[in-house]
Amino acid sequence: MLDLTPVLAHLDGDRDQALARLFEFMRFRSISTDPAYDSECHAAAEWLARDLAGIGFEARVAPTEGHPMVVAHDLAADGPHLLFYGHYDVQPVDPLELWARDPFDPQVVTRDDGTKYLSGRGAADDKGQLMTFVEACRAFRAAHGRLPCKITILLEGEEESGGASLPPFLEANRDELTAAIALICDTGMWNASTPAITTMLRGNVADQVTIHAASRDLHSGMYGSAAANPIHVLTRILADLRDDNGKITIPGFYDGIPEISSDLKAQWERLGFVPRDFLGEVGLAVPAGETAYSALEQIWSRPTAEVNGICGAGFKTVIPAEAHAKVSFRLVGDQDPEAIRVAFRKFITDRLPADCRAEFVARGGGRATVMPLDDPAFGKARQALSDEWGTEAAFIGCGGSIPVVGEFHNRLGMDSLLIGFGLEDDCIHSPNEKYEMASFTKGARSWVRVLAALA
Amino acid sequence: MLDLTPVLAHLDGDRDQALARLFEFMRFRSISTDPAYDSECHAAAEWLARDLAGIGFEARVAPTEGHPMVVAHDLAADGPHLLFYGHYDVQPVDPLELWARDPFDPQVVTRDDGTKYLSGRGAADDKGQLMTFVEACRAFRAAHGRLPCKITILLEGEEESGGASLPPFLEANRDELTAAIALICDTGMWNASTPAITTMLRGNVADQVTIHAASRDLHSGMYGSAAANPIHVLTRILADLRDDNGKITIPGFYDGIPEISSDLKAQWERLGFVPRDFLGEVGLAVPAGETAYSALEQIWSRPTAEVNGICGAGFKTVIPAEAHAKVSFRLVGDQDPEAIRVAFRKFITDRLPADCRAEFVARGGGRATVMPLDDPAFGKARQALSDEWGTEAAFIGCGGSIPVVGEFHNRLGMDSLLIGFGLEDDCIHSPNEKYEMASFTKGARSWVRVLAALA
Repeated sequence: MLDLTPVLAHLDGDRDQALARLFEFMRFRSISTDPAYDSECHAAAEWLARDLAGIGFEARVAPTEGHPMVVAHDLAADGPHLLFYGHYDVQPVDPLELWARDPFDPQVVTRDDGTKYLSGRGAADDKGQLMTFVEACRAFRAAHGRLPCKITILLEGEEESGGASLPPFLEANRDELTAAIALICDTGMWNASTPAITTMLRGNVADQVTIHAASRDLHSGMYGSAAANPIHVLTRILADLRDDNGKITIPGFYDGIPEISSDLKAQWERLGFVPRDFLGEVGLAVPAGETAYSALEQIWSRPTAEVNGICGAGFKTVIPAEAHAKVSFRLVGDQDPEAIRVAFRKFITDRLPADCRAEFVARGGGRATVMPLDDPAFGKARQALSDEWGTEAAFIGCGGSIPVVGEFHNRLGMDSLLIGFGLEDDCIHSPNEKYEMASFTKGARSWVRVLAALA
Repeated sequence: MLDLTPVLAHLDGDRDQALARLFEFMRFRSISTDPAYDSECHAAAEWLARDLAGIGFEARVAPTEGHPMVVAHDLAADGPHLLFYGHYDVQPVDPLELWARDPFDPQVVTRDDGTKYLSGRGAADDKGQLMTFVEACRAFRAAHGRLPCKITILLEGEEESGGASLPPFLEANRDELTAAIALICDTGMWNASTPAITTMLRGNVADQVTIHAASRDLHSGMYGSAAANPIHVLTRILADLRDDNGKITIPGFYDGIPEISSDLKAQWERLGFVPRDFLGEVGLAVPAGETAYSALEQIWSRPTAEVNGICGAGFKTVIPAEAHAKVSFRLVGDQDPEAIRVAFRKFITDRLPADCRAEFVARGGGRATVMPLDDPAFGKARQALSDEWGTEAAFIGCGGSIPVVGEFHNRLGMDSLLIGFGLEDDCIHSPNEKYEMASFTKGARSWVRVLAALA
C-alpha cells in the first residue's frame, strides 16, 4: 500500500495551483442546454483531456450525437479497476442580475469568520467536485509516480440537458468502461462537518392525464350541473389518491417495498434530523404525508404520489371541455414503474363517470437504487471519509433520482459509490452557486484516502 | 283599442324596406370591445336616433363615459308607459376566416327548403331583434298616426363590453326611464315554432381561491409527502363540494330556494325537453348534477356549484407553492350571493390542513330574478305571442344572468318582459351569426300584438 502522507502533503502544498486550474476550467461557459455554447462545451472537454494527459492518463475527447465525452485511462497499477464519473457541463446562469459576482469569473470569497468559498457557476455542480478527484490523482502521481489502482475517468457534457448520449455511449464502450465499482462525485454531505455516502436513490414514474368531457367549453349558466365537469371528475379522483393517513390508495402500490434495516434506521436516528428545521426553511412546519413514518423516512425510503401540476380552463365562467394533471411517483425498493403506471391508469379509468374519458401520456420512469451495503467497498470508503473529516460518515438516502447510477447498474452491472462534498446552501442550479473551500480541499484529501482504501 | 289589421298589413307590405333599414344598421361595425370601432359605435347610435326621430320619437344620443345611449320618447298616447331596451353594439368577428360571408355585408340567404335567414354580425344579437320593435312602432305610426301607449326606448352600446355605463345612466335619468314595465328583446324562443317569455333568470356569485403552502415550489424528490401539497389540499376540498348524488354540501347552501309551482312544472313537462338531445349537441349523453331533479330543472330552477378553472404549477416534478381555482355558483329563488360567498369561504377554511392558508378574491355576484307571473302583463303578452305564432307561448327559464334585468329591478323598480325571437343555432358571439327571416317578420308582428295587449 502506498504511503498517504506525501500524497496529502502534496495536495496541501499545491492548493493555489489546484485552485488556479479549477478556475481556468470554470471560465468555460459550458452550458449544455444552449446551442450557443456548444464550442465552450467542446473547449471544456478538450481542456480536461489535456489536463488528464498531463498527469499520465491516456485521455481522449470522444464525440457523441451531442456534447462529447472525456474518457481517460490509467491502468498501469495493480489492484482493482475503478470508474470515476463527473460532468463538465453547467446550468444556465439567468437571471444574471441576481448574481453577486460574474458566474464565469470564479473567485475565492472570505467570510467574516474566516471561512472561504469558491464562487461561480459549476463551482459545486460539478466542476469543483470532479476536480477534487482529478487533484487526488495528480497528488498520487506527484508523490509516487503512479496511482494506487486502475482508474478510468468518464466525464459527461450533457448531465444538465437530458444526458441522451450517455446510454448509447455506455453500450458502445462497455468493455472499456466497465469496472469493479463506479465512483461518482455529484452529491452532498449530510452537513458541513459530516461526510456522507448516498446509498439509496428513489426511482420515479410520471404520467400526464387529461380528462375529456364535452366537445367544447360550455357556458356554466346554460349547462351547469347537467353537463359533466372534467375538473370535478379530476379533483374527485385525485382526492382519492391518498387516504386520511396519507397512505396512497392505488391497489398494489406498496408491493415490493422492504422495511429498512434496523441498523440503518438507528444510524438515521443518530443524524438528528429535525423536521421542523427542514420544513421551516420553506415556510412549513408540520410533516404531511404518511402519518406512520418519520419525515426522513418519507423523503428517503418511502414512495410518494404527488400531483405536480393541474390545469383546466381559465377563469371565465365556463365548464371546460377538459382538465389536465401531471402526477408523479417517487419509488423505493423493488417498486416497478410500469406496473405502477398501469395501476394508476386503472385507478383513474375505474372512477370515470359517464361522458368522460381519460387520455394519458407517459412521462418517464425508473426503478429505485439501493446500494448493497454489505459490499466491503462501502465500509472502507465510509472509514476513509470518517478519518479525513474526524466525524463518522453517514449512509444517507436521496429523495431524487440520479439517472447515471441506474445506467451504470443496468448497462454495465456496476454499483456506485456516491461520495460528494456539496452542501444544501451551495445554490446549484440557482444564482450565486458556490463551493466551500473546505469541500474542495478536504474533498481531494478524502479521495486520496478512499482510493487507498479501495486499492 | 287600435285596430291591428292595418298595422300588421303595413308590416307585411313594408318588409323589403324594413330589411333595407336593418341591413343599413348592421353595416356599422359597432364592436364595443375594441376602441378602434368607437366612431362606428357612435355612428350606429346616431343612425338609430335619426331613424326613431323619423317615426315621431323625440330621440337623442346621450353621452356616457363609454359608448353613448340612445334615448327616445313618444309619450303622446294614453295608456301605460313602457320602456323598451335593446343594444346596438356587437361582438368582435374574429376569426374572420370562419365566416362564410362578410359579417358586415348582411344578406338574405335562401335555404333549399325555401326558408330564409339574414346573415351577418348583429343579425340576432341584437340589431335584428331590436329592429323588430322599432318596425312595430313604425307600423303603428303609419297605420294610425300614433302608438297604442306611451313608449320610451333605451338602446345601449356596451352590452357586449361590460355595460359599465348603464347603472350610472339609470340613476341619473331615473324619472325619464322609469315605466310600468320593461320590454327586452335579447332572448330566444323555445324552438323555431314556439315563442317564449323568459321568466326566471339565475343569479350568480363567484370566488377565486388560492391555497398557499410552502414559500416556494419544492423539488418533489426532496420534499415529496413531507411537505403539504396545495394541489392535494385544493382537490380534496373541491371534491367535497358535492356529494355522490350531486347535492352541494356547503351548509346553508339551499336556504331560500322555493320549489317551482306545479303549474309551471307541468308546462315545462309539456315542452318535451330531451336531455340527450341537449347534451348530445356538445358530445355528452348523461345528465350529471343532482340526481333528484330533471336536467331542465337543473339548468333553469336549481342552483349550481361549478369549478370553472383550476391551476397549479406547470408540468415539472415540483410540489407547487400554491394552487388556484375559480368556483362559481348559479343562484335561484332567494339565495343570497353574499351569504353563499361567506359559507363557501368557511367551507374551504374549515378544511385547511396545517401549513396551508387560503386567500380569496370576490368575482361578482347577483341575485336570481323570478318574474311575478301573477302580474296580468305576463298573461296578456303570452296570449299575444300565442296568437301570432299559432302555438302556446312558453314561460321558460334561463340558466344564465342578464344584468340589465337586475338593474331595472333594483334601480328603477321595474319588472321585465323578456321576449325575443332568437334560436339556439343563431351563432351569436360566433362566426356566421344569423337571424331567421321568420324571427324578424313575425317578431315585428308579435310586438304589434304585445303592445296592443298591454295598452
